[in-house]
Amino acid sequence: VRAAAAAGTRCIVFGPAAELEPVLGDAAAVVDAPVAVTNSEDPARAVRAKPEASIVQAAAAVAAGRADALVSAGSTGATLAAGLLQIKRMRGVHRPGLAVLLPVPGRPTLLLDVGATVEVRPEQLVQFAFMGAAFMEAVMGVANPRVGLLNVGSELEKGTPAAAGAHARLATLDGAPFQFAGNVEGDGLVSGQADVVVTDGFTGNVALKLMEGTTRTLVAAIRDAIRGGAVSKLGGLLIRSRLGELRTRLDPESVGGAYLLGLRGLAIVCHGSSSRRAIASAIDLAARGVEQRVNERTGAALAAAGVARAQGGAEPDSASVPADSVNAI
Amino acid sequence: VRAAAAAGTRCIVFGPAAELEPVLGDAAAVVDAPVAVTNSEDPARAVRAKPEASIVQAAAAVAAGRADALVSAGSTGATLAAGLLQIKRMRGVHRPGLAVLLPVPGRPTLLLDVGATVEVRPEQLVQFAFMGAAFMEAVMGVANPRVGLLNVGSELEKGTPAAAGAHARLATLDGAPFQFAGNVEGDGLVSGQADVVVTDGFTGNVALKLMEGTTRTLVAAIRDAIRGGAVSKLGGLLIRSRLGELRTRLDPESVGGAYLLGLRGLAIVCHGSSSRRAIASAIDLAARGVEQRVNERTGAALAAAGVARAQGGAEPDSASVPADSVNAI
Repeated sequence: VRAAAAAGTRCIVFGPAAELEPVLGDAAAVVDAPVAVTNSEDPARAVRAKPEASIVQAAAAVAAGRADALVSAGSTGATLAAGLLQIKRMRGVHRPGLAVLLPVPGRPTLLLDVGATVEVRPEQLVQFAFMGAAFMEAVMGVANPRVGLLNVGSELEKGTPAAAGAHARLATLDGAPFQFAGNVEGDGLVSGQADVVVTDGFTGNVALKLMEGTTRTLVAAIRDAIRGGAVSKLGGLLIRSRLGELRTRLDPESVGGAYLLGLRGLAIVCHGSSSRRAIASAIDLAARGVEQRVNERTGAALAAAGVARAQGGAEPDSASVPADSVNAI
Repeated sequence: VRAAAAAGTRCIVFGPAAELEPVLGDAAAVVDAPVAVTNSEDPARAVRAKPEASIVQAAAAVAAGRADALVSAGSTGATLAAGLLQIKRMRGVHRPGLAVLLPVPGRPTLLLDVGATVEVRPEQLVQFAFMGAAFMEAVMGVANPRVGLLNVGSELEKGTPAAAGAHARLATLDGAPFQFAGNVEGDGLVSGQADVVVTDGFTGNVALKLMEGTTRTLVAAIRDAIRGGAVSKLGGLLIRSRLGELRTRLDPESVGGAYLLGLRGLAIVCHGSSSRRAIASAIDLAARGVEQRVNERTGAALAAAGVARAQGGAEPDSASVPADSVNAI
């Protein structure tokens, strides 16, 4: 709430007005929405059952054009469900993708999908490439981003039918606004081999959580190893603050939120434990996405490359809320 | 070769006799097999085309009962292909699994499959649970191992249809020689939550390589951070040897090989860069697997739980060599 009050962007804050108004004063508009969807509820069901909930009202404001983007530090699943039901998919998009910036030293890598769609078809992976590239270019300022496909080897025929099919399509695209960097293996996710890596939501979710877990385990093991000897204990005292910084910098959990791409408005899901600074940065990113017209660019690029979904086809938005809730961040 | 010469187990060494015999003398038998299958060949094709290759002859010796287990530091894909074509699957097994011990501090975790089968059916994941549990119990001495299912959340209906289907079966097994530990998320792979984690070969391969990559990236970042300041540079000198040890201990690439489970003989694939000690340890593990009858136990447990494949069904061994070669380790 304090981040919204201090933002250089006009904010509307959805929540319990009695608590919000004393903090916000005239700095931001308030819409009274004292009901919340919590992490313990089934998100799709809760979002349908509670139209008065803050996340549903906020998504409805974006859908109605009263707001341009959505920032939430609540449940990822609820934001995804409210986004799909209220804001709806962009024209031509099969399924939205949940994207996370991996803190690769010196070269952040956007990984999507990390949990919105556990099984994908090749054409969905291709669309993720367009969404991720548009985000990196428009919001993060990466010119002509390199897009890789997460896979189990470098040859084009490798992997699941979905991965092999996506490789064949990505390698033969005409006029895509990104470079196809080919297959990226697991270790390539953290080596800066690509600016965007696309995969299915099952593999992406496992990869994201494994990277977090490995970082935590490794930093804890280093601390234990340092404590184990007198000489290294002294050494450890001398590097302690650097180690702490590094853990913060390299743990995906501590460095950002998730970007829900492919809706008619950008939605950013921050961690529940986000600091004021993290929320302020998410508001700035959302504003930059709107100014740089990330959605229009994505839609135009999909249409120009002929990979937009035919209109009037299957998959109504209400049917595409995943039955299994995501808990990506 | 020196490891085979010094082993407490009788070894037959397949390779160029002119080079082997001067080293081995009478310490081990030699079969002259100067032809090799290299990492750059398509493994299934090369194994079919070169019956005289060392890996094919070694696998044939196991198939004929002249040897009880196979140890190789060559191509993983070639060992998998030779194993399937020559040694063949155990009775009742749908597909073999390639397993790797993750170096979780204090509690190694066996992950399978890491690349033998990129897409799995629920009954294959269930069989991986039996194979992994039998290996951990018989070879690693873990009593009543805890077996988890890699997934994107803790609830039973989570994940792909294969994962959800496997969860339902594992949760209702009667008389399995292991405890089902439920779903394990990405971070649970490195927290010691289970002794065995089963998944499809696509996700497992990405996870293994990502863990290796994250460890390398993190250790490099720590070194860079330490070099960045005078005080921490001194600290870094004091902890340098501990950091090196830790990297060796935690990088899956440096701590072991892959175990090919589900064939009629145990096969162990060591890294191409394995030291004499690593090969000696692989020979010991293979011998322990034979002594402890890991295969008989796996087969009996599959049959007792009613999850063995019906005999005379589809999937001849020759058809089940994956068209895409694996490059797991």
